[in-house]
Amino acid sequence: MRILAIDVGGSNVKLNLCGEELVRKFPSGKQLTPTRFVEQVRALTGDWCYDAISIGVPGPVFGNVVRTQPVNLGPGWAGVELGRYFDCPVRVMNDAAMQALGSYQGGRMLFLGLGTGLGSALVVERVVVPLELAHLPYKKGRTFEDYVGLRGLQRLGKRKWAEAVADVVARLTAALLPGYVVLGGGNVKKLAALPPGVLRGSNRNAFLGARRMWEDYRWDPASSAADASPCQSTDARCS
Amino acid sequence: MRILAIDVGGSNVKLNLCGEELVRKFPSGKQLTPTRFVEQVRALTGDWCYDAISIGVPGPVFGNVVRTQPVNLGPGWAGVELGRYFDCPVRVMNDAAMQALGSYQGGRMLFLGLGTGLGSALVVERVVVPLELAHLPYKKGRTFEDYVGLRGLQRLGKRKWAEAVADVVARLTAALLPGYVVLGGGNVKKLAALPPGVLRGSNRNAFLGARRMWEDYRWDPASSAADASPCQSTDARCS
Repeated sequence: MRILAIDVGGSNVKLNLCGEELVRKFPSGKQLTPTRFVEQVRALTGDWCYDAISIGVPGPVFGNVVRTQPVNLGPGWAGVELGRYFDCPVRVMNDAAMQALGSYQGGRMLFLGLGTGLGSALVVERVVVPLELAHLPYKKGRTFEDYVGLRGLQRLGKRKWAEAVADVVARLTAALLPGYVVLGGGNVKKLAALPPGVLRGSNRNAFLGARRMWEDYRWDPASSAADASPCQSTDARCS
Repeated sequence: MRILAIDVGGSNVKLNLCGEELVRKFPSGKQLTPTRFVEQVRALTGDWCYDAISIGVPGPVFGNVVRTQPVNLGPGWAGVELGRYFDCPVRVMNDAAMQALGSYQGGRMLFLGLGTGLGSALVVERVVVPLELAHLPYKKGRTFEDYVGLRGLQRLGKRKWAEAVADVVARLTAALLPGYVVLGGGNVKKLAALPPGVLRGSNRNAFLGARRMWEDYRWDPASSAADASPCQSTDARCS
């Protein structure tokens, strides 16, 4: 089954077919409406052959629908059913959850995405649990995201930011009891060393997550998977 | 399959067979070692016939083993494998998680147990995810448990404590995105009204959770279930 993976970031939208090396991209940002998104995807993938599409979106997704307007995208995303714009089955997931799924190696894993904000997801026994831990209180009236997101990095400087990341990882580990933690997101490369027991994620894991969205992993609400008809293709090019 | 359910609380240990009306109990507390616990269970259930045992323990459990010493019990619980003391399959789970499992009605549920401390668990797509949210920072250098546990109730008084419970439920709902919240634990009866979208748990749900521990629910790490041989009984008295 050939999966077109689409990772919608705040700066770029990245397109990948079946985990192959090639990644195509176009600019994201405050001008990107769902209509322009669909046009660009069509324009850039006209020569690609695929059976189904997985889309990671930077915001909460319920039942294959983007629930709230992502802060870094253009208007019109809240409530949009992306599946209506394509002729094949589409599954939509929060972008941190999709990267988490691709980073998963069994057991209970906590994924934290260090980007503009702080993405988060648990994967437990092959069930993906998208979270929004960013806005939980941390200290001095500020949230976890205020310390380890981009604004925290800018305010604290790299050394103190890295200390905050280590402390936040420790606190969330004590609360959520993961067997291991994966740190992903664009800013993880700014960490010279990782806290003990923490693995470094890779943005390419989002593409693996996109393919796993069509395998025997589950996420809630259950309707998010059930909305899309299963693909009948038996082409094994992506297996 | 007849399940002996054992709910180890800080004040009492409660015993129940197959969800029947009768509950037997004996005192818990700082004198209760695992050895005394096993003696008492044997003494009180000699006339009961069961195929397997589920035990809920007030502390983290990994792979059927109590990980750390519960603060309200006697010494010797850390690292104890309770399954070794009985002649039938035994499954052990955190007590809040067991009550959560019994409260579960599908989708993603957050369970919060308002007792001496603050117990917590998610159940997602029939997978039980025991948590330790109690010690996450809340405000003024204090944790969630400092506000909504027993010490919080004593410090704040019932009215302010109830306000804190509502606020903590709202914050954890925003972070963990449950479809619904169940409030259990001994102090939930002190809440005159429940926050919107919140259901009231029942201590008896622990016994239903104990039976569900032998049905097609899962929890991590996977070994916690795999440690116990499956029971071969086909007796359907508890079904």
